[in-house]
Amino acid sequence: MNHPSDRLLDAVEQLGTPSCVGIDPVLDRLPEACIQAAADPLAGIGLYCEGVIDAIAGRVPICKFQSACFERYGSEGVRLLDRLCHRASEAGVQVILDFKRGDIGISASHYAASALDRADWVTVNPYLGVDGITPFIDASGPGGGLGAFALVRTSNPGGDEIQSLRVEDGRTVAEAVADLVARMGADSIGVHGYSALGAVVGATKSADAARLRERMPQQIFLVPGFGAQGGGLDDVLACFNADGRGAIVTASRSVIYAYEGDTGDWRSAVESAAVEFADLLARGVGTS
Amino acid sequence: MNHPSDRLLDAVEQLGTPSCVGIDPVLDRLPEACIQAAADPLAGIGLYCEGVIDAIAGRVPICKFQSACFERYGSEGVRLLDRLCHRASEAGVQVILDFKRGDIGISASHYAASALDRADWVTVNPYLGVDGITPFIDASGPGGGLGAFALVRTSNPGGDEIQSLRVEDGRTVAEAVADLVARMGADSIGVHGYSALGAVVGATKSADAARLRERMPQQIFLVPGFGAQGGGLDDVLACFNADGRGAIVTASRSVIYAYEGDTGDWRSAVESAAVEFADLLARGVGTS
Repeated sequence: MNHPSDRLLDAVEQLGTPSCVGIDPVLDRLPEACIQAAADPLAGIGLYCEGVIDAIAGRVPICKFQSACFERYGSEGVRLLDRLCHRASEAGVQVILDFKRGDIGISASHYAASALDRADWVTVNPYLGVDGITPFIDASGPGGGLGAFALVRTSNPGGDEIQSLRVEDGRTVAEAVADLVARMGADSIGVHGYSALGAVVGATKSADAARLRERMPQQIFLVPGFGAQGGGLDDVLACFNADGRGAIVTASRSVIYAYEGDTGDWRSAVESAAVEFADLLARGVGTS
Repeated sequence: MNHPSDRLLDAVEQLGTPSCVGIDPVLDRLPEACIQAAADPLAGIGLYCEGVIDAIAGRVPICKFQSACFERYGSEGVRLLDRLCHRASEAGVQVILDFKRGDIGISASHYAASALDRADWVTVNPYLGVDGITPFIDASGPGGGLGAFALVRTSNPGGDEIQSLRVEDGRTVAEAVADLVARMGADSIGVHGYSALGAVVGATKSADAARLRERMPQQIFLVPGFGAQGGGLDDVLACFNADGRGAIVTASRSVIYAYEGDTGDWRSAVESAAVEFADLLARGVGTS
């Protein structure tokens, strides 16, 4: 049961909710208490993220760290991110490292190696084609290891300009990428029937989701953009297979900043928002 | 003269050669002397890269660090990369941080911030569209700052699968990206007439280079794939504008591993190879 897609889907099954909390800490939105208790900004971010992890553990099966929020603080930020990834793992939370790397050959292998000991899954960029993705799947190896979500259809408005271009054969560029992902992922299927190569499909692109689901039946969809970015429950349903499986939905700001405008304890507010989000998806998607 | 494209082109002008050495250190190809003199593998990489920087300073105007080679060693690798970037800058070598980031909004801003104090230019991935590129150009700010090379046509074989797809209007995906880059870069032109937003166009894709040059007259081309990857002088000429300006050509393995199979001092071998590469481009491109 060490295949990355099996680990992920088992975690979803265990808590009964295909939910994921995005941990994208931005300094000027941190709770005052974290800033005051810390020696420096990065330490404040550390305290805050520890609180978020504790608040979601046992309630939400998966978390997704935005690497950029930590890399901005240089090597010390990377060190903190490592520590937080391990803390989440120890708390039983599956870890997605959202670092959107895209490079080729030995460089892609280096990036995969940099993630292997701290994350269950990573996000990767498909613009360089097969060469940019293979090393991440290879890193999953015969005994399990790393899974990778390739960016197929991103949730931002500007993504349309490239991803929605229509190719001569009638497919969009995103659909061509989907076909590439489906083909490449076919060799690394876990016992639950899903590949170690998944796909990022934004919650704000629900019109495209059904077609992408058809093209990628064995891919787990990572669905960002729920909540603050405008995607709702109806928007994400098309990302799931007919049995209610095969996708995980990420909310970030709507959960991790739930204390804003609230006078109570910030941890309680995050915990309540996490539970509410997890329940919403449990009811809405209805995996039995 | 603090615009990133002016800094880069002035450095090229000063040494009379549009050459760049890619520093992509891989442990098992390091000189025996570096391994033996160092306490651990990362320290060996540090010694080696310092030697490479010293060997090329004053001979080659630009270096390009492959971030993955350092990130694989976690936070300590990132710390070493920072130190090497500063060493190269202090030696008068322009620094390109090849990290191929691609994210949106605040995350892209974080990545730009992570590069601002250590690099002159970075590489970025365009698959997320305008939202993924703007923050890097904005980071260049009114007083200069960062330049960004967007991946347009990469040198790897697998890049064809997405980048060569033909869109309904007859353009390839790479050409559509080129138009996006040209449009976005038009607002940040330096006194030499080139934008803070440049383009990566592989030396192995010479058939496409002329068309891409036409679409992006104000972009500096970063041309990887020279030497070990198979691109030669004839292949890169189409990347330059008619006046012999507007592109820089990168060689990596053919320079930094020039000591392999040689019994002499490894630093001398790297230095000779760097000089030879710089001279080849100086003669071949013929900026007067």
